[in-house]
Amino acid sequence: MKVGVIGTNWLVEEMISIFNKCGAEVLAVYSRSADRAKFFSENNNIKLYFDDLEKMLQVDDIDIVYIASPNAVHHEQAELALLSGKHVIIEKPIVLKLDDLQDLIDIAEKHKLFVFEAVTTLHLPNYQKIKEMIEEIGDIKLVDLNFSKYSSKYDDFLNGTIKSVFNREMGGGALNDMNVYNIHFLLGLFGTPRKYTYYPNVERGIDTSGIVVAQYDSFTATLSAGKDVVGNSHISIQGVNGLIRSSSSSSTIENFEFVTFDKSVIVDVQDKNIYEYEMQDFIKIIENRDVESYKELLAQSRNVVEVLERINNE
Amino acid sequence: MKVGVIGTNWLVEEMISIFNKCGAEVLAVYSRSADRAKFFSENNNIKLYFDDLEKMLQVDDIDIVYIASPNAVHHEQAELALLSGKHVIIEKPIVLKLDDLQDLIDIAEKHKLFVFEAVTTLHLPNYQKIKEMIEEIGDIKLVDLNFSKYSSKYDDFLNGTIKSVFNREMGGGALNDMNVYNIHFLLGLFGTPRKYTYYPNVERGIDTSGIVVAQYDSFTATLSAGKDVVGNSHISIQGVNGLIRSSSSSSTIENFEFVTFDKSVIVDVQDKNIYEYEMQDFIKIIENRDVESYKELLAQSRNVVEVLERINNE
Repeated sequence: MKVGVIGTNWLVEEMISIFNKCGAEVLAVYSRSADRAKFFSENNNIKLYFDDLEKMLQVDDIDIVYIASPNAVHHEQAELALLSGKHVIIEKPIVLKLDDLQDLIDIAEKHKLFVFEAVTTLHLPNYQKIKEMIEEIGDIKLVDLNFSKYSSKYDDFLNGTIKSVFNREMGGGALNDMNVYNIHFLLGLFGTPRKYTYYPNVERGIDTSGIVVAQYDSFTATLSAGKDVVGNSHISIQGVNGLIRSSSSSSTIENFEFVTFDKSVIVDVQDKNIYEYEMQDFIKIIENRDVESYKELLAQSRNVVEVLERINNE
Repeated sequence: MKVGVIGTNWLVEEMISIFNKCGAEVLAVYSRSADRAKFFSENNNIKLYFDDLEKMLQVDDIDIVYIASPNAVHHEQAELALLSGKHVIIEKPIVLKLDDLQDLIDIAEKHKLFVFEAVTTLHLPNYQKIKEMIEEIGDIKLVDLNFSKYSSKYDDFLNGTIKSVFNREMGGGALNDMNVYNIHFLLGLFGTPRKYTYYPNVERGIDTSGIVVAQYDSFTATLSAGKDVVGNSHISIQGVNGLIRSSSSSSTIENFEFVTFDKSVIVDVQDKNIYEYEMQDFIKIIENRDVESYKELLAQSRNVVEVLERINNE
């Protein structure tokens, strides 16, 4: 399969080799800036480059469009790609509004295409292991997820140069950028909370960090994310019979510790680049037209978008 | 100085040697149960035992009464002790209502006596070190404290045998018992939050665990405590320039890691039993009639009681 990518950031660069490993080839790149598109294509051995998205979408050979642009333009670009007959893989958060998501789902269905949210968490073997093992720790009482990392763009932000990830109109902020992983992690294990409250730290109109408090019937979880702090990512799920903890973020889950009253083991069943798992899953779903797995992923994305939309509208 | 102790639990047993190390002697013990008082005194080489509190308070030699009874009876017992001319050291939380605290402060002042809250945190050298170093980590963005430990009494509780720490009428529960340390830790560093919300996990009418969300003007802190979970105590204070973290609870702070962009050091300036620091401070304050230090401690206790009272009344 051939891929056209939208965006020229470090993640797109990483994805080129990931697609290769999954048997797909990045054939074309689009950037608003012709110079950047050209530079990126030359630097990464990509045959075609475009500063006109519609032109890239006219390339028949492209089967999949991978979208890694600012969150605010995900919907529009995905719609165009689907209408051009391409499958779409969109970086998290897939979109920021339920209506936008429904629109994409409808178009994809009509054209027998797939639309995916690229969020590492759900596809990580260590996450699936946590899902398997969590029953053993008994009733859950305390959940605390922290994904935090000082962003080099935060210095620019403080100096007045505002990049997309710190731009509200571009769908930036710590909630949409990093806490999305925590929300996926949480909802994948426990479903949609009955209530959630966001406590953002707002600077210049954007949440540079913040905490989501998510209430379930029998416990409350706190999800912290920060782009403005020295990082201390961790996962802590405490039950009456045991504990699952990790010093990794919910985006990587490099390993986790499984503790009960009489034992403590380190679990790690991952040996690939974290992005390989998601891409492998998407390509397999497309190849096998595995609608069941597809719908499961979409259902989770829908639940997460619902949380994001509500919080963003508060 | 001579001490009379109220209570016969493991902590009181521990305190006997602590008092000794601080140059004080435990002369008498009181328990509602004559058998327990006798057994405890024999077992710990204490000269006098009582099942009548007023009788113990009539012993002239006793200078200090140390109260480690259920929270709900702290106020009444401390009042009696002060009216008998004894200094009073009360296990945290000192009392659960501001009026009760004011009452004790007034009586103590009138009789030129001292009333102390025994809470390890404030007196720990590692805590004082955190207070000194915290400025270096810059603006604070995320604070997450977790003090959790499976209580052996939780099994009894689930089986219907309800001990004081799980009895609402006795002032039990995870907030009053364990989260008090987190609240002291937080307020000692940042003052009283402008708003706090408690998210308790309630079983049989009592919070067996729960999370306090404390909002300051520029950040929000989460304080978790649990008596019903496999413990995962930790401290995390994240600033724009650095991080303070520990895998200890706020009650012990065995050591902490101080991380900035270019260094990471483990800090530990404690070498004594954690209870020795508080008792040493109290005895020094009494001996030197150090009213300034005394008032500082009381001010902090008042702020904490205010938080507890509001939350308990919700």
